[in-house]
Amino acid sequence: MIIKDKKSQPVVFAVSDSIGETAELVIRAAMVQFNSDKVDIRKVPYVTDNEYVEDIIEEAKNTADCVIVCTIILPEVRQHLLSLAEQNQIPIVDLMGPMMDTFSKIIEVKPHLQPGLVHRIDEDYFKKIEAIEFAVQYDDGKDPRGLSRADVVLIGVSRTSKTPLAMFLAHKRLKVANLRLVPEVAPPDELFHLPPKTIIGLTISPEKLFDIRQERLKALGLSTEATYAQLSRIMEEIEYADMIMEKIGCPKIDVSNKAVEEIATSILEIIRKGEV
Amino acid sequence: MIIKDKKSQPVVFAVSDSIGETAELVIRAAMVQFNSDKVDIRKVPYVTDNEYVEDIIEEAKNTADCVIVCTIILPEVRQHLLSLAEQNQIPIVDLMGPMMDTFSKIIEVKPHLQPGLVHRIDEDYFKKIEAIEFAVQYDDGKDPRGLSRADVVLIGVSRTSKTPLAMFLAHKRLKVANLRLVPEVAPPDELFHLPPKTIIGLTISPEKLFDIRQERLKALGLSTEATYAQLSRIMEEIEYADMIMEKIGCPKIDVSNKAVEEIATSILEIIRKGEV
Repeated sequence: MIIKDKKSQPVVFAVSDSIGETAELVIRAAMVQFNSDKVDIRKVPYVTDNEYVEDIIEEAKNTADCVIVCTIILPEVRQHLLSLAEQNQIPIVDLMGPMMDTFSKIIEVKPHLQPGLVHRIDEDYFKKIEAIEFAVQYDDGKDPRGLSRADVVLIGVSRTSKTPLAMFLAHKRLKVANLRLVPEVAPPDELFHLPPKTIIGLTISPEKLFDIRQERLKALGLSTEATYAQLSRIMEEIEYADMIMEKIGCPKIDVSNKAVEEIATSILEIIRKGEV
Repeated sequence: MIIKDKKSQPVVFAVSDSIGETAELVIRAAMVQFNSDKVDIRKVPYVTDNEYVEDIIEEAKNTADCVIVCTIILPEVRQHLLSLAEQNQIPIVDLMGPMMDTFSKIIEVKPHLQPGLVHRIDEDYFKKIEAIEFAVQYDDGKDPRGLSRADVVLIGVSRTSKTPLAMFLAHKRLKVANLRLVPEVAPPDELFHLPPKTIIGLTISPEKLFDIRQERLKALGLSTEATYAQLSRIMEEIEYADMIMEKIGCPKIDVSNKAVEEIATSILEIIRKGEV
């Protein structure tokens, strides 16, 4: 089940009794600090019995440089992994154990201790799926009827991260429609009848947008001479977008040099404060 | 001592020197075990100096039932938070510290110790954004040209989680196109010229699909009498889809009663094994 590894590469085993999503995420967050693409992160999902634990320990013993990161919920299985790792001097980090113990101090109910619960199909799950489908359906102003049904409407010129932002916010259960602002196409009337607080304007510096669009054209194998990526055109689009945003009176976020996750955090902040 | 006030809501402070995404995710994964929607998760992002740490401790001291979960990368700031929490007997879980220390044992390079690095805008970031945009652009067979450019093509009848799956896989940097199979519309020729291993068929039990479609119609405020949600129609669609999948010879995954995250894991497994 576990494939043997090349000797030189450090290995992190992400051992979970569910699918191992959480472990992988935290490992990546830590790993990026080491600037190391050479580490092999190996997810070992569905580890729910002691026999499987023993297999993993055997494999780890045969791997030169390795660390185990464990997000096992089942206390017995987790304990077995922890003691075997210690016996065999394999470095191990227990992500869920200390957290569950600490939470028990403030929460009176007993934990379910049921692996995979985080992926259960419940109302919250359906909300997330619905939000993802909504973002796809109402991407790029495809259907103006989406505007009034959205929790948030993102507006901005082309290449201001509207689509990926809509998707990140969908994971937070927000229904997001997005609309591209272009001088040649007047926005649908619906936009001006929405509560201004449901709209967020994405702005960007002309220089940054110039770089992004030049790159975009290169990536598509097109000439960088196209109007789309000319500074005069970019200035015209940005001015037009600014004018629309002023008219609406919506909050604005400058997306230049920001990652989508950071912009999403700012948007959530605005929503929380303004109770959009 | 923390005086427990049973009437107040327990609070988890998710303290980060970046945006707090990682902390929130792990907290939710643990929290779901307690079946507790009543816990207030308060993200405290961008905590990069000792003064801010002291503010948080003050707030925690004034909060009856609380726990701090910390994903601070900066060693001094983290240490300050840990010691102040201990002094004030506030339960605290350090998520990044033990992991960084353990990784240092197998990785020779020194960590950057730079907050927010996980959200840096690099090649990998652009790959993810590109994959998200790809999934939106080639959703629901919108453009058959996407099929040959995709890393994975998902096929299946309506309501087999194709769109959300494409989005989850996009976060894993996979370009996914999806195509709905309907008896009345022959799939584009392109589909039959792809390597069968790039295609994954999503199957579902007729009973499950019946339930989902009935719910879907109700949610849309439509009559549940529609052909779309009738068992005979569902059987016909499923048989047709099966026939197409047999013809292609692609791997199949039964999505009945599975969460999107779980199906995505199965797909990644198939890809890894088959080296699609």
